[in-house]
Amino acid sequence: MAMAVTNRRVILKRYVQPGLFSEDAMEVVTGETPPPPGAVAGSAAVLVKNLYISCDPYMRNRMIRHEVSTYVADYIPGEVLTNYGVMKVISSGHPGFKAGDLVWGVTGWEEYTLIDKPESLSKINHPDLPLSYYTGVLGLPGLSAYVGFFEVCKPKKGEHVFVSSASGAVGQLVGQLAKITGCHVVGSAGSDEKVNLLKTKFGLDDAFNYKKELDLDTALKRYFPEGIDIYFDNVGGSTLDAVLPNMRLFGRIAACGMISQYNLESPDGVHNLFYIITKRLRMEGFVVFDYKGMYHQFEEEMAGYLKEGKVEYVEDIVEGLDAAPAALIGLFTGRNVGKQLVAISRE
Amino acid sequence: MAMAVTNRRVILKRYVQPGLFSEDAMEVVTGETPPPPGAVAGSAAVLVKNLYISCDPYMRNRMIRHEVSTYVADYIPGEVLTNYGVMKVISSGHPGFKAGDLVWGVTGWEEYTLIDKPESLSKINHPDLPLSYYTGVLGLPGLSAYVGFFEVCKPKKGEHVFVSSASGAVGQLVGQLAKITGCHVVGSAGSDEKVNLLKTKFGLDDAFNYKKELDLDTALKRYFPEGIDIYFDNVGGSTLDAVLPNMRLFGRIAACGMISQYNLESPDGVHNLFYIITKRLRMEGFVVFDYKGMYHQFEEEMAGYLKEGKVEYVEDIVEGLDAAPAALIGLFTGRNVGKQLVAISRE
Repeated sequence: MAMAVTNRRVILKRYVQPGLFSEDAMEVVTGETPPPPGAVAGSAAVLVKNLYISCDPYMRNRMIRHEVSTYVADYIPGEVLTNYGVMKVISSGHPGFKAGDLVWGVTGWEEYTLIDKPESLSKINHPDLPLSYYTGVLGLPGLSAYVGFFEVCKPKKGEHVFVSSASGAVGQLVGQLAKITGCHVVGSAGSDEKVNLLKTKFGLDDAFNYKKELDLDTALKRYFPEGIDIYFDNVGGSTLDAVLPNMRLFGRIAACGMISQYNLESPDGVHNLFYIITKRLRMEGFVVFDYKGMYHQFEEEMAGYLKEGKVEYVEDIVEGLDAAPAALIGLFTGRNVGKQLVAISRE
Repeated sequence: MAMAVTNRRVILKRYVQPGLFSEDAMEVVTGETPPPPGAVAGSAAVLVKNLYISCDPYMRNRMIRHEVSTYVADYIPGEVLTNYGVMKVISSGHPGFKAGDLVWGVTGWEEYTLIDKPESLSKINHPDLPLSYYTGVLGLPGLSAYVGFFEVCKPKKGEHVFVSSASGAVGQLVGQLAKITGCHVVGSAGSDEKVNLLKTKFGLDDAFNYKKELDLDTALKRYFPEGIDIYFDNVGGSTLDAVLPNMRLFGRIAACGMISQYNLESPDGVHNLFYIITKRLRMEGFVVFDYKGMYHQFEEEMAGYLKEGKVEYVEDIVEGLDAAPAALIGLFTGRNVGKQLVAISRE
């Protein structure tokens, strides 16, 4: 097999400080291609060629040096970034995988990765759908939307649902799953282009550009005159604060992400928590890693929706590893339209 | 039957403004005794003599004029305050009640009250216990502790429980119920006298005076080196903010009250909500009125604990309606030691 002898990769250059996050935290360097697994005697590793890698907001948190480890390990300066991706097996020392297999799982932000524990990889069961979907609608963002909405929010038909960051990787699916469930759904996003997507392609009942609203409380009262039963929170901060007084009795808030807060020196204060008592609200955080056992059920259901055209998915794909750092940074300014990912190789 | 012709009562003098709450919101006046129910043809009302009335923090919220009604109706200036109390029936037009019956339920802050809908009253099933207990440990504060701890927190033996305002009407019971459940329990309170009560009379594993702690985060790390599984929140604000980073994975926060916030012009900001995601926390508000259906089960269980000496209860009783406004105000400065109530008449 002809192999490149070099391996372009994105490394963490230095830990990110609280506050601003910019491309110079990362560096694109050229290293050596890892040896094929057969070259390491007795290795059960798998050498993969990376096709698509996912850009996710939680990666920023991994670039901060934590004294006490958080829910995911910190990246290490000088080492390659890792995250979920879609890969093709090049050579395998593991009996469960063979050259040519299409898989998804945690890999490096590089052209080739030697994966020591291939048990963590999943086969791609629906290769007739775009392979890149396994970084999004059929990957962890999809599972996040699915378990966050159904398991955490426990929706009922007819309930009123608000989704922030509603055109993002997770948000666009929450909105559509809520529509499939028979809910009234309104989403917010940060541009008119995204709002248009929400109202047309994703079929939400309504949507608004939060950047154009002088007062979020007023906007929410306009879109939810009877209040909100379910808030799927991807942004935290002032949006969460404005939502609280607009919740209905026994409402539920799924805390999925707080992207408005990650680049702040210190997080915004949320002032309206007393409504949690008076309105008997349940606010619950979740991390998709805890729900991997539901993946297969989710994959089959979501693949079905995609094939039947009941769910649409919009991706924002940049080409090549050199574009990867800017794509990751762009998540925090809302540059992406839809799920952000990087195509390393389309082969 | 000899009846007083006058009726001392506490009225709302004027709506309370956001911010400071002082006695001059209320006035003690002398009105006429309501007529006995028999004097109103066809009335099914009950005339009661009020024995004990409860002072509760939520009453402050009812003294504010709300544009949109909150979870309880606002009081009306010039009208008598109402809240839960213990009463003796003087005369009855209702077949379910007769003169001499001891009851508890919503009544007026006055000597005598004509209760139009006596269906809302409950018989006192354990008159061998102090009657005043039906304003507290056998009344709604007791039910709050019971449902908040068991139904909302869903505790497991061995879990680590933190209770704020832990010597208060609700807190002192939460701590003891947690001990009965086999939890490790630490409480906070605002004086050394209260801390002593927590460690001795109520049998908590440890307790501290939050006013003596320079940094609440440091204090919590000292008392909970392994973190907190359950936080029963009676205070909100900066205590809640300090608790969040000290919660363990899958921890639960029962939002019962936020007394630190009620007298503020605008509520404090809570900055650490991101931990709700990373630690997969569930924060849930509850209002005891929603759990009235569990009262009978609770009453029997709690009366049993009291009679067996498994639960202790400390009351702070002031004598007479003239002392009632100051007693209510005192809740917000922590003047009371234990459950605050007013004895109107000990007959």
